[in-house]
Amino acid sequence: MDINNYIVTKAKNAKLAARTLSTCTTNTKNKALLNMAAALMSNAQSILDANKKDIKNAINEGKNKAFIDRLSLNNDRLESMSNGLKDVASLPDPIGEGIRSWKTEDELKINKIRVPLGTIGIIYEARPNVTVDAAALCIKSGNSVILRGGSEAINSNLEIYNTIYKAAISSGLPEGCIEFVDNTDREIVNLLMKLNDYVDVLIPRGGAGLIKNVVNNSTVPVIETGVGNCHVYVDSDADTKMAEDIVINAKTQRPAVCNAMETLLVHKDIAEKFLPHLGETLKGLGVEIRGCNETQKFIPNIIQATEEDYEIEFLDLILAVKIVDSLDDAMNHIYKYSSKHSEAIITNNYLNSQRFLNEVDAAAVYVNASTRFTDGGQFGFGAEIGISTQKLHARGPMGLNELTTTKYVVYGNGQVRK
Amino acid sequence: MDINNYIVTKAKNAKLAARTLSTCTTNTKNKALLNMAAALMSNAQSILDANKKDIKNAINEGKNKAFIDRLSLNNDRLESMSNGLKDVASLPDPIGEGIRSWKTEDELKINKIRVPLGTIGIIYEARPNVTVDAAALCIKSGNSVILRGGSEAINSNLEIYNTIYKAAISSGLPEGCIEFVDNTDREIVNLLMKLNDYVDVLIPRGGAGLIKNVVNNSTVPVIETGVGNCHVYVDSDADTKMAEDIVINAKTQRPAVCNAMETLLVHKDIAEKFLPHLGETLKGLGVEIRGCNETQKFIPNIIQATEEDYEIEFLDLILAVKIVDSLDDAMNHIYKYSSKHSEAIITNNYLNSQRFLNEVDAAAVYVNASTRFTDGGQFGFGAEIGISTQKLHARGPMGLNELTTTKYVVYGNGQVRK
Repeated sequence: MDINNYIVTKAKNAKLAARTLSTCTTNTKNKALLNMAAALMSNAQSILDANKKDIKNAINEGKNKAFIDRLSLNNDRLESMSNGLKDVASLPDPIGEGIRSWKTEDELKINKIRVPLGTIGIIYEARPNVTVDAAALCIKSGNSVILRGGSEAINSNLEIYNTIYKAAISSGLPEGCIEFVDNTDREIVNLLMKLNDYVDVLIPRGGAGLIKNVVNNSTVPVIETGVGNCHVYVDSDADTKMAEDIVINAKTQRPAVCNAMETLLVHKDIAEKFLPHLGETLKGLGVEIRGCNETQKFIPNIIQATEEDYEIEFLDLILAVKIVDSLDDAMNHIYKYSSKHSEAIITNNYLNSQRFLNEVDAAAVYVNASTRFTDGGQFGFGAEIGISTQKLHARGPMGLNELTTTKYVVYGNGQVRK
Repeated sequence: MDINNYIVTKAKNAKLAARTLSTCTTNTKNKALLNMAAALMSNAQSILDANKKDIKNAINEGKNKAFIDRLSLNNDRLESMSNGLKDVASLPDPIGEGIRSWKTEDELKINKIRVPLGTIGIIYEARPNVTVDAAALCIKSGNSVILRGGSEAINSNLEIYNTIYKAAISSGLPEGCIEFVDNTDREIVNLLMKLNDYVDVLIPRGGAGLIKNVVNNSTVPVIETGVGNCHVYVDSDADTKMAEDIVINAKTQRPAVCNAMETLLVHKDIAEKFLPHLGETLKGLGVEIRGCNETQKFIPNIIQATEEDYEIEFLDLILAVKIVDSLDDAMNHIYKYSSKHSEAIITNNYLNSQRFLNEVDAAAVYVNASTRFTDGGQFGFGAEIGISTQKLHARGPMGLNELTTTKYVVYGNGQVRK
């Protein structure tokens, strides 16, 4: 099999479909999404059977429990995927939305409107729900999509893909609107990353290794997602009860995600009042604390924090804690270690809250709230394709609008340039 | 000299400056821009002397007249550069502008505001004015900038840089806010393209070769500018006088730029009425016409158009002409050959105008106006860093807003995620 020909053919099909999709009516797109939702449930048994094969393979390969959990499907999860499709159908269509309109000195009337990006490539790992979520958001925003999921989920993904693709086509969407890479040869990803003639953007979704590989090797523009080394800074003026609630939420409510807190910074003047009680509570919740020398005075029997503890994303019930001398110290620490995802200050001091919001550079900066809110759903976007940690095109949670580009539509009556 | 150390040091300085610049007041930035404008005029003689060296070298190297013209400075051009700085000072500051604000279901108040990108690298060729224009736009939008101009203009660029940088620093901007690569080793560009830790975006400005090199080799995100294979389609229902005026303007007013027309498409039903007179006029203006077989029936003694003529950007007084059977034929031709920059239809038919605007995918689509209007100044943006021909982040003319990213500023009162 010629894998170059294989992936180029898929990319060409997707590009061809994108031209038709860009002018599909909202009604056609929504009808397709609802039919895809129904098909997923009516074909549930085949999907679950395919998933069992993947799980069996994963167990044989000695994958850990967390991996198996991400991979596993059941009726509840299928229903949640199906409901996700219905939710996307109910969202407003971003295509054609006017962003700005004005008249120039030459009396040209200009409308800046949203149009689809074209063809989007999604490279992802073990979660089969991405197959559905990504397809739904791309279709709704008028884009064709090329899906390349992890080899560990290939049976589940393929059965899901066949189910939703059939429903999409029979609802009037163009052939090629969703393409799925059913060959798990890793070389295909390398080829896909160079197909600038056919693919408008690549969005990698998964671990740091996958994302780094795509960012370093793709000539197709990439939207980087995922890494979150997030901080909560408890200022000297903080309400300690509020601070404890937020810290516990940001660390323990779902530690394995990118908007969870990884390092807690505490102003020295509040440490004695704040840390002993917090330390007990965190330990009771199973959190491993790694503290600086000062922290160890207030929380006994914890591990010494190293430079590396400040650098990495634990994605686990582990928390680095550091006592700082001032707001500036806290902001310098954040400047040095932050991945610019989500950063929070807990304070009742107006000036400090404003300085933190203005001076800390991140996709989302918070006063007196948990970093866990950085999420398309929580922000009210209705759905999310990922959280961008880059600055170009989209920053923070990406909903339907972030899957569009713009076009200037210019109405003249014979104008020429002088 | 260790060139890696050389460019990394510059990039580090620029990154350090970006942190300070992001919170500079509008007043400080404007004062600096006005002082830079004044310094340029008071140091005019040294700049013109340095420019003479570059011109002498270019002549010795046998560069052509157009090249020498792009490289040459005189008092008028210096004054225009100085006025450019004043214009940028007078534009509204994009930083801090609110894009959207809302309240979530959890009563979080979210503001989406504009913030600087950080550090911008500009890689350009022989025009010394880019040194000033790019620095002005980056500074006003709160970004630090690393300038890497062509070796042919090194003496001019260095004198201009020293002049404006001194004025910037003495006006209170941070050291490193404008860095200039005064080593013309080409390897430095390759190193710069990999400095993701320090540089947030690269904008290449110049010929297709330069842009392709940066797009293919940069791991730093790139905004692609420049290539414009633009079409004007004269529909069967067009006002032929208006069509002729627009065609002549789009082709001849400034043929060497990206928004000039390269191919004219004419509906077969209007060809006999439209083409003979247009052909004479174009020939009188020195335009070389390359036509399809049908075109040659209406404009005698012209060159046969080849496939390649439809593919390339002439950037010269050369025009490809093709007669098409229908609007669909015209749109198919545009779909096949367009670089998605600027596309125009000339028509009085409402339905056709709407179909063209909806179905043609380009940064700017026009009815009854010249493609030459795709320009930051003409669109009313006040200034322009280039015209993006990509779909991510910015599409079409890029002004100050396109040199910014966004940040979500979230005000809470103790919210945690359930």
